[in-house]
Amino acid sequence: MKTSLGAQTLLFPAPVLIVGTYDAAGHPNVMTAAWGGICCSQPPCIAVSLRKATRTHGNLTARKAFTVSLPSEDFMRQADYFGLVSGHDTDKFAAAGLTPVRSDMVDAPYVGEFPFVVECRLAHTFELGGHTQFVGEVVDVKAEESVLGSNGVDLGKLKPIAFVPGSQAYYRLGPWIGQAFSVGRQD
Amino acid sequence: MKTSLGAQTLLFPAPVLIVGTYDAAGHPNVMTAAWGGICCSQPPCIAVSLRKATRTHGNLTARKAFTVSLPSEDFMRQADYFGLVSGHDTDKFAAAGLTPVRSDMVDAPYVGEFPFVVECRLAHTFELGGHTQFVGEVVDVKAEESVLGSNGVDLGKLKPIAFVPGSQAYYRLGPWIGQAFSVGRQD
Repeated sequence: MKTSLGAQTLLFPAPVLIVGTYDAAGHPNVMTAAWGGICCSQPPCIAVSLRKATRTHGNLTARKAFTVSLPSEDFMRQADYFGLVSGHDTDKFAAAGLTPVRSDMVDAPYVGEFPFVVECRLAHTFELGGHTQFVGEVVDVKAEESVLGSNGVDLGKLKPIAFVPGSQAYYRLGPWIGQAFSVGRQD
Repeated sequence: MKTSLGAQTLLFPAPVLIVGTYDAAGHPNVMTAAWGGICCSQPPCIAVSLRKATRTHGNLTARKAFTVSLPSEDFMRQADYFGLVSGHDTDKFAAAGLTPVRSDMVDAPYVGEFPFVVECRLAHTFELGGHTQFVGEVVDVKAEESVLGSNGVDLGKLKPIAFVPGSQAYYRLGPWIGQAFSVGRQD
């Protein structure tokens, strides 16, 4: 028996995306977003939804580029902090003691200490209501050698964080449970 | 030291979304999608990206409504199966032994046995290249009473699946590790 919970933003899991941009003066900023993900394979694109009030919204609109850094579990506190304060009045990199690194591919900075980053040029901007959805074409993905295994990124080494809407909590990613495009074969 | 992995669709974790639609004759169909997630808070919206070749793409375009059911881990095989075969030539519900339930809110079916469903009316359609992004306004969310706790959906009972691009694998969601909008406070 299913119970109605009303019209809510509930879907599990959501990612923890650290969006990096420069402002007009070239100052780096970062913010945390959970409304986003991969949205196209060809060309490879990812989407992030941001409220207009954020510093990042203005930066991204002006400079048409952004990065998405993924924190490992070790950086959960810093990732959460990036979502608690506004870049309008805080140098979040300095306050968190983390390093803005200029992307060599797009006009945006990423978090040097975080193990994984996706570098994007702005491809589309869609107004959805309270949030604007920015779709970025992926220009490059970079990862620390320490999180790579024999088959690319090793999730056990990357230790990404998942966000759970509703209870507003961070969760660890658990163990591998099956291979996609395989475990469901009926033959 | 970061290594370039090229322009790829890598972001962790992604969800496992079972998209339910009716065709013109009223036959229910489902397919599995991992490119999607929450994209707006007001109005509450979720996005799913689908290739034009899929049955669901045509159904959704015609009927302007869809559901997203989330499988629990117990239904991983069926969820994977829904992504392996085409609704053009298979009655996937019948083949998987699962029950299409007509939404009481929108013109689309969901998977009765799956513990959680989001019911959407189509709000926007965006062409991104190989994928079309469908943005649905959430009309209702329903969950089995067996997965609810004192604070809404209990993730330990829901047991949602995460998808990991690259290695193309399903992962369990791990334990709670911190409270968002809280753990990063510096005061």
